[in-house]
Amino acid sequence: MKRGNLLYAQSGGVTAVINATAGAVIEAARRRRVKVLAGRNGIVGVLREDLIDTSAESAAAIAALRHTPGGAFGSCRFKLGTFEANRAQYVRLIDVLRAHDVRYFLYNGGNDSADTALKIARAARALDYPLSVVGVPKTVDNDLAVTDTCPGFGSVAKYTAVSVLEASLDVASMAESSTKVFVMEVMGRHAGWIAAAAGLAGKGGDDPPHIILFPEVPFVEDAFLARVQATVDRVGWCTVVVSEGVKTPDGRFLSETGGRDAFGHVQLGGVAPWIAQRIKDRLGLKYHWAQPDYLQRSARHLASRTDVAHAVAVGRAAVAYALAGRSGVMPAIVRTSDAPYRWKIEPVPLTRVANAEKKLPRSFIRRDGYGITERARRYLEPLIRGEDPPPSGKDGLPRYVRLKNVAVERVLPAFEPEA
Amino acid sequence: MKRGNLLYAQSGGVTAVINATAGAVIEAARRRRVKVLAGRNGIVGVLREDLIDTSAESAAAIAALRHTPGGAFGSCRFKLGTFEANRAQYVRLIDVLRAHDVRYFLYNGGNDSADTALKIARAARALDYPLSVVGVPKTVDNDLAVTDTCPGFGSVAKYTAVSVLEASLDVASMAESSTKVFVMEVMGRHAGWIAAAAGLAGKGGDDPPHIILFPEVPFVEDAFLARVQATVDRVGWCTVVVSEGVKTPDGRFLSETGGRDAFGHVQLGGVAPWIAQRIKDRLGLKYHWAQPDYLQRSARHLASRTDVAHAVAVGRAAVAYALAGRSGVMPAIVRTSDAPYRWKIEPVPLTRVANAEKKLPRSFIRRDGYGITERARRYLEPLIRGEDPPPSGKDGLPRYVRLKNVAVERVLPAFEPEA
Repeated sequence: MKRGNLLYAQSGGVTAVINATAGAVIEAARRRRVKVLAGRNGIVGVLREDLIDTSAESAAAIAALRHTPGGAFGSCRFKLGTFEANRAQYVRLIDVLRAHDVRYFLYNGGNDSADTALKIARAARALDYPLSVVGVPKTVDNDLAVTDTCPGFGSVAKYTAVSVLEASLDVASMAESSTKVFVMEVMGRHAGWIAAAAGLAGKGGDDPPHIILFPEVPFVEDAFLARVQATVDRVGWCTVVVSEGVKTPDGRFLSETGGRDAFGHVQLGGVAPWIAQRIKDRLGLKYHWAQPDYLQRSARHLASRTDVAHAVAVGRAAVAYALAGRSGVMPAIVRTSDAPYRWKIEPVPLTRVANAEKKLPRSFIRRDGYGITERARRYLEPLIRGEDPPPSGKDGLPRYVRLKNVAVERVLPAFEPEA
Repeated sequence: MKRGNLLYAQSGGVTAVINATAGAVIEAARRRRVKVLAGRNGIVGVLREDLIDTSAESAAAIAALRHTPGGAFGSCRFKLGTFEANRAQYVRLIDVLRAHDVRYFLYNGGNDSADTALKIARAARALDYPLSVVGVPKTVDNDLAVTDTCPGFGSVAKYTAVSVLEASLDVASMAESSTKVFVMEVMGRHAGWIAAAAGLAGKGGDDPPHIILFPEVPFVEDAFLARVQATVDRVGWCTVVVSEGVKTPDGRFLSETGGRDAFGHVQLGGVAPWIAQRIKDRLGLKYHWAQPDYLQRSARHLASRTDVAHAVAVGRAAVAYALAGRSGVMPAIVRTSDAPYRWKIEPVPLTRVANAEKKLPRSFIRRDGYGITERARRYLEPLIRGEDPPPSGKDGLPRYVRLKNVAVERVLPAFEPEA
């Protein structure tokens, strides 16, 4: 029996381990003798009929995806409209799938992508095209509903905690006659998961980070500065972690308010330099600040072993679900125990995931608003556990793979999707 | 025969491997049955008679210094004045050394510290106090004269190359429908050594980084922007590495000129956000930028094995020189072969090192000014080779040591040094 092909595509911001999922998908499908096509740059490539034939890649290249950051087939930021308003787009999509005998579609992304996957599943039904659609979780933001965590988060959490620990050892050495405050910005525009992970750098008390600024806790400058000064007086120095999503008490992003100059132009820099400058202006303390940006989500050299295991497991499960004919589901990570840390994978309906957002629970934030609770530690700590270093080359660099990404021959007319 | 004690102190900006030197110093001295005192926060602690008794630390704790970043005894930014103008300070310094029977003084730092070490050696002679003073090289800037490289540089070079490689894989995945340009700032206010190391992320051609902005090459905005646009047109995206020390054709730091708002206030943020904003304003390209700051020099988790070996070797050699009665010298790294990479340690007079600055050779910068030459690669590549990962704890963090830093009892009156 001919089973048809499987199409895999990546979506949204990439992570240190999304390729580990891709590799697991391809390996699982190969074991079942199912051919895997990939969308070049996510769903955009599918609409363009710009597909990649992963059969052209060696087993070694596919295995190396496990330790290669970024998105090996390219990702995209692209939302599909409703079926009703964008019927032509869906017809094109199904035409492409039909032309390449695609019977299984795996979309690897966050909550937007879960929504896209759902829309495609519905369109296939409406257009009477037999298709199994499976969402595959991925996001550094950890804000996907239902699943206990998202592949990608554990590694950015580990990067953040280790970086805060290392930079704090540096500041501690310099504080006597130089830098007294270090401010580091982290991702997470809508939820403070990554900011919370920074708390793992220390065990609480006077361990760094001394202050975490969460998007969930309104920023009150006077109280914050008093806390910085008290920390410097007591400890000698102070490490501050600030989420890019931190807001004023009236709900505006700090990066917008403080970030405007006298003419209303948005100023350069992010929240970290703004906070650092306030510390300098009002407390007169010497500072340094860091904004790791993409470094935090691409740092495969420092990936969490737990995170890699999650990424591989959801990829394998997604293939199993699809080949079993399930559609409109996503493999979720279910935690069965904190200590020892135990987890399993279970299918959940995409309807429960699409467009939902998992917030950082209030019980994870310390009462004073500047740190994490023991409950947060119990949740977060297993996620950064273990290393899974990439192999290193003679040139001192990790040996990351670059795929050939051979295009599948086009058979349909050209089509350019509109965003 | 009683040999007297050895005093070790750290100075200037710390590195990922300065503690590897400290550990090697202490272990070498212990093997020779010489007691090691440490200055708390460098020379400032010595002037204050704030000394640390390293005998209180276990062999395991001292061994763990090899893999712990920051400065274990605290560092300082403090310049000693001339002997003539600051005689009281030197008299105090020698009083402290005499009171604690210090016969060997090892100062671990950059070219300022080499100058400090020289001044102390001269003061000891002038005050007729027998003292062996040995400078021990350390700086991420790689700008120390005579020595082929400085412990600390290889690791920041590796961090920079790996980070550029990883973030570039991220940008490459996003470029089709999102971020097209990534700008990363690196340290090196006066010389482009770290910027040059970023060039190791690729093999040239269209590998990232596509553009490096060196302090040695005046920044011409139009030419730079044309190069960015051409890269995006050809490759689809562009990675830019910019040194914090990049200057305008009339010799001003870019961070100062572009960094001022309409009122002449210095704006927030560094060079990276400024460059990124110009790219957005004039080319309309979506960007991300990163400023790793202290993360780059404290990332012991990603240290270069070669660099760690250098750090250990200069520490051991410094003890050997001091105990052999040599003074006014520094162990230098001498390269005897590029391929295979071979090196040895030799003593050089501190007079050749103090206050000198080793610039990036023009032959290391590509003729177009935006990249590195093969000659630069031959020099740089061995320095980032190999890993030396710190042991990892069950909590997913590297197991960095915190010393007890037990104070030596004071016997002299209090003294507060003036900067």
